[in-house]
Amino acid sequence: MFPLNAWYAVAWDVEVGRKLLSRTVCGRPVVLYRTQEGRAVALADTCWHRLVPLSMGSLHGDELQCGYHGIRYGADGRATHMPAQETINPSACVRSYPLVERHRYIWIWTGDPALAAPSLVPDLHWNDDPEWAGDGRTIHAECDYRLMDLTHETFLHGSSIGNAELNEVPFEVTHTDRTVTVSRWMYGIQAPPFWAAQLANRFPDYGGPVDRWQRITFEAPSTIRIDVGVAKAGTGAPEGDRSQGVNGYVLNALTPETDRTCHYFWAFARNYALGDQRITTQLREGVSGVFFEDETMLNAQQRAIEANPGYEFYNLNIDAGGMWARRLIQRMIDAETEGVGTAATEVARAGR
Amino acid sequence: MFPLNAWYAVAWDVEVGRKLLSRTVCGRPVVLYRTQEGRAVALADTCWHRLVPLSMGSLHGDELQCGYHGIRYGADGRATHMPAQETINPSACVRSYPLVERHRYIWIWTGDPALAAPSLVPDLHWNDDPEWAGDGRTIHAECDYRLMDLTHETFLHGSSIGNAELNEVPFEVTHTDRTVTVSRWMYGIQAPPFWAAQLANRFPDYGGPVDRWQRITFEAPSTIRIDVGVAKAGTGAPEGDRSQGVNGYVLNALTPETDRTCHYFWAFARNYALGDQRITTQLREGVSGVFFEDETMLNAQQRAIEANPGYEFYNLNIDAGGMWARRLIQRMIDAETEGVGTAATEVARAGR
Amino acid sequence: MFPLNAWYAVAWDVEVGRKLLSRTVCGRPVVLYRTQEGRAVALADTCWHRLVPLSMGSLHGDELQCGYHGIRYGADGRATHMPAQETINPSACVRSYPLVERHRYIWIWTGDPALAAPSLVPDLHWNDDPEWAGDGRTIHAECDYRLMDLTHETFLHGSSIGNAELNEVPFEVTHTDRTVTVSRWMYGIQAPPFWAAQLANRFPDYGGPVDRWQRITFEAPSTIRIDVGVAKAGTGAPEGDRSQGVNGYVLNALTPETDRTCHYFWAFARNYALGDQRITTQLREGVSGVFFEDETMLNAQQRAIEANPGYEFYNLNIDAGGMWARRLIQRMIDAETEGVGTAATEVARAGR
Repeated sequence: MFPLNAWYAVAWDVEVGRKLLSRTVCGRPVVLYRTQEGRAVALADTCWHRLVPLSMGSLHGDELQCGYHGIRYGADGRATHMPAQETINPSACVRSYPLVERHRYIWIWTGDPALAAPSLVPDLHWNDDPEWAGDGRTIHAECDYRLMDLTHETFLHGSSIGNAELNEVPFEVTHTDRTVTVSRWMYGIQAPPFWAAQLANRFPDYGGPVDRWQRITFEAPSTIRIDVGVAKAGTGAPEGDRSQGVNGYVLNALTPETDRTCHYFWAFARNYALGDQRITTQLREGVSGVFFEDETMLNAQQRAIEANPGYEFYNLNIDAGGMWARRLIQRMIDAETEGVGTAATEVARAGR
Repeated sequence: MFPLNAWYAVAWDVEVGRKLLSRTVCGRPVVLYRTQEGRAVALADTCWHRLVPLSMGSLHGDELQCGYHGIRYGADGRATHMPAQETINPSACVRSYPLVERHRYIWIWTGDPALAAPSLVPDLHWNDDPEWAGDGRTIHAECDYRLMDLTHETFLHGSSIGNAELNEVPFEVTHTDRTVTVSRWMYGIQAPPFWAAQLANRFPDYGGPVDRWQRITFEAPSTIRIDVGVAKAGTGAPEGDRSQGVNGYVLNALTPETDRTCHYFWAFARNYALGDQRITTQLREGVSGVFFEDETMLNAQQRAIEANPGYEFYNLNIDAGGMWARRLIQRMIDAETEGVGTAATEVARAGR
Repeated sequence: MFPLNAWYAVAWDVEVGRKLLSRTVCGRPVVLYRTQEGRAVALADTCWHRLVPLSMGSLHGDELQCGYHGIRYGADGRATHMPAQETINPSACVRSYPLVERHRYIWIWTGDPALAAPSLVPDLHWNDDPEWAGDGRTIHAECDYRLMDLTHETFLHGSSIGNAELNEVPFEVTHTDRTVTVSRWMYGIQAPPFWAAQLANRFPDYGGPVDRWQRITFEAPSTIRIDVGVAKAGTGAPEGDRSQGVNGYVLNALTPETDRTCHYFWAFARNYALGDQRITTQLREGVSGVFFEDETMLNAQQRAIEANPGYEFYNLNIDAGGMWARRLIQRMIDAETEGVGTAATEVARAGR
C-alpha cells in the first residue's frame, strides 16, 4: 500500500535528541536519537534478542543499550556488547535506516539503502527558507495516507478558508513523472475573511477586489504543497508579479504508519510580516482548526471504506488530481514489486 | 440473524428533526432528518462518491449535502447536484428507506420497500393513547436483540418489581402467527411494594390483598408489551373488570444494530393519575433502574455466548415463551431467504 | 500453552469469602466463594442454562443461585433447584474445581481431578512460615505467563535492586525434573543501597563489604522463588552460615489467565525484624515498584512477539535458566497431550 523506496518525514527535527523517540513508519517501528555530535540515527525499535522495544532502553554515548538484558548496539545497528559473554553473536544486529535532515524534518528511507539518494527528498524548502516564516504541527490520523484529497475545500472548510467562488471556477490539472498540480484562479473577487485579514497585514488600506490563486502540487508518494494567496486585482499576479499580494504555502508530509493510520506533518509558511510571531501563532492555530476538520472527515471515511470492502469509487471531474496522484503512487509500488530483486528482497527482509 | 422485511423502531419521534441523526439498524448506517414540512426521512448514511457519512454534512432545504465534496441528495436519495460539473451521473443515489411515524417512534423498513405495509407496524398504541400516560428511554445494549427474555423477573428483579409468588404460580403460553403470550395470575396476594404504592395512587385507603397479573406479549420480530397490574382481590379482574385496580404497560421495542448490539426503546404507560407528572417521572426513573439490571445481565450473557461457540442451550419449563418467540423470528428469516427473489435480492442489494 | 494438570494460585486467601469472586484461569472463568464453614469453593462461572456468569448471582447458605433465572447449585456443582419445575434435569451441573488453601494462596487444579494431589502444590512456605515475615500484591500482566525471565535484573532494575557486579559474575544453572535453579555469588562487594539498608536493620554498625547471593528457583509450571541476601563478607555464608546476614525470598506465582494474559501473585518475605510492620510496608511498596518495571517490559515484549509471528529467538548464555524452564513446561504439556486419555479427555471436556 506504500512504496518503500521513498523518503518519508518521520519527525520534526526538534523532536529528535538524546531522549529516545519511538515511531512507526510503513509498519516498521523505529527508535530515533542523536549521537553526541548531533547526527540523527534511526534503528529498528526491536531488540534482536527478545524483541522488546529498544526505545525502552538507554543511551550510552552513541550506543543504545536494551533495557531488558543489556545488549548494546552502535549507531550502525551492530551489537557491540552482550551481558555475561565475551564473544558477540555475529548475527546480532538491528536494522539501521538512512536518514536525511532537511526543511525542519527528519526524513527516513524505508526501502533499499543503496537507492537512498538525498536528492530525492521532496521539496518543502519554504519551511526553512529565510524569506518565509511559519510553523506547524503533527496530526496522527486514523486513515490510509492516500485518502488525503486535493479538492474538498469549499464544502469541508466553507466556514473557514473556503468560499463559494472556489467551487465554480474551472481548474487545470497537469502532471510530471513525480508530481501532479491542480491550479485555480479567481479574478476580481471579494477576498474571503481569512485572506482579507492577511492582505491587510501588508496593505492595511486596501479594501478592493483581489485575484486569488490556489496551486496544489502533489509529489509522490506523499507530500502536498499548496501555493495560496491573493493580490490586488489586476496587478499582474496571474502573469507572475505577486508584489501587490500576500502568499502562503501549506506544506503537507503524510507518512504511512500502518495500512490504516498515518502521521501527518503540516506547516504554513508566509512571505510577509516575517518577524511578527503573533501572526505565526495566529496562523498556526487557525490552520490547526482547518486540519481538525480534515482529520475528522478522513477518519470517518477510513471507517466507511473498511465497512464497505470492495466498493468501487465513482470519480467526478473534481477527482482528476487525486486520480493522478494515486496513479503515481501505484507506479512506484509496481516498480518495486517488479524490480530486479531490490524492492522484493527488501520486502522479504523487512518481514523481520 | 434478523428479518429485513420488518418495521423496526429507529428513534423516538422527538429525536428526529432538522439536525442530522446517524443511527445503524440491521447493520445499515442511516441518517435521519425531517423535511421543512416535518416529514421524517431516512437515507443511507454513506455518500455514493467517497463513502463518508452524510450525517457529517448539512441540510439545504429538504436536500442533504455531503460535507466532503458537496454532492447533494433529495429526500428520495437521488443526487441533485455535483460540484464543478453540470451533468449528474445517473447512478448517483443513496438508498432511501420507508418510514412510518407511530406511537411516538419512527419505524424503519429495512427490507424490500414494496412490502413495507404500514399496517404491519407493531401495536404499541398505549404510548400515545390519551387514556394512558407515561414516558421512556433508550438503552444501547451490547447483545443480540434476541436475548431479551420473558420470564426472569423474580430473580433478576427480586429486590425491585419481582416477588416470590411470581415464581411459584403456573403460567400459560399461547401464540398466533406473529405473537406469543405468557400469562400469569396471582390471586389474593399481598401487593409487592411497587404495586402497593401504585394502587395507593387510586385507592389510598385500601390495604387488603390483591389479584395480580402479568401478560407478556411478544410480537415478531422484536417488540414485547407487558400488561401488568393489580386489583383489589375478588373484584373481578381475572374476568375482565379492572375498575378496582391499576394497570400499566411496559412497552419494549428492540432493534438490531449489528449482529451483537441492539437499540432498546422502552416506555411505561399507566391508566391512572394521568395528569400527575411527578408519577410519570418517578415511574420512568424506577423502571430505568430495572432495565439497567437487564442490560448488565444481557451484556454478560452475550460475552458468555461468544466465549462458548456452539453451546446448545438446555430449555426449562420457563423457556417455553422464549422458544416460541425464537421460532417466529426464524420463520420470518426463512421466509425471506426462501422467498421468490424479494428478500434475497434485498440482501444482495443491501451489501452496498 | 499451559499444562492443565497443575496447581495454579488463583487468589490470595483473604480475597475469597462470602462475596462472590470471578477470575479466569487457563481460559476458564471460575467463581470463588467460601461455604458457611469457611471451605473455599470454585465453580465454573457459567450457568448451565443460559451461560450467564454465576458470579452475578447470590449465595444462599452453601448454594449459589444464578441471578438470571434462579437455578441453584451446590458446592459440588450439581443443580439443586430449578424455577417453576419440580424435577431437575439430570445433566444440570457446572464444573467444580479442586482447591487447596496453602501458603496464603488458594490453589486451583484445572486438569483431571483424579490427579489433583495436594502434595504437588509448589513450595512457597516462606509466605506463612512464622520465622519469616512479609507481604505482597497481585499484578494483572498483559503477557504470556512464560515470558517471566530469570536474568534481567541488572539492566531492568539497575536503579533499584540491581548492581553492576551482578552482571559480571558467573552463574550456575542446575535442574531437576520439576525445578531449575540459577545461582550467583558475589564475594566481598560493596552492598548496593537496598541491601545496605536491609543489613542495617540487623547490624546497624556494620559498614564493610558483603557476600551477596541470588538463587532463583523455578518450579514448573509457573512459580519462581528467589533466595536473595547479603552477609558480612567472609563470615561463611557461601558455606551455609547465614547468621551474619539478612535473607529474603521473592515468591512469584504466575497463573495463566488466557493465552496472552496472566495473574502474577508476588510476595517478599524476610527473616529479620519480623515484628516491624513499617519494614513490611516499606519492602512491599519498594518491591511493588520493581515489579512495575517488569510488568511494563513484559507487556511490551508480548506486543512485539505478536507483531513478529514466527520469530525464532536467539539465546545467549544468560538464557540458560529460562530455556530449561520452558523445557520443563513443555514436557508437562506433552505428557498431557500424549497421556492415556486423562489429559486429552480433560481438554475436550474443558471445551464447555
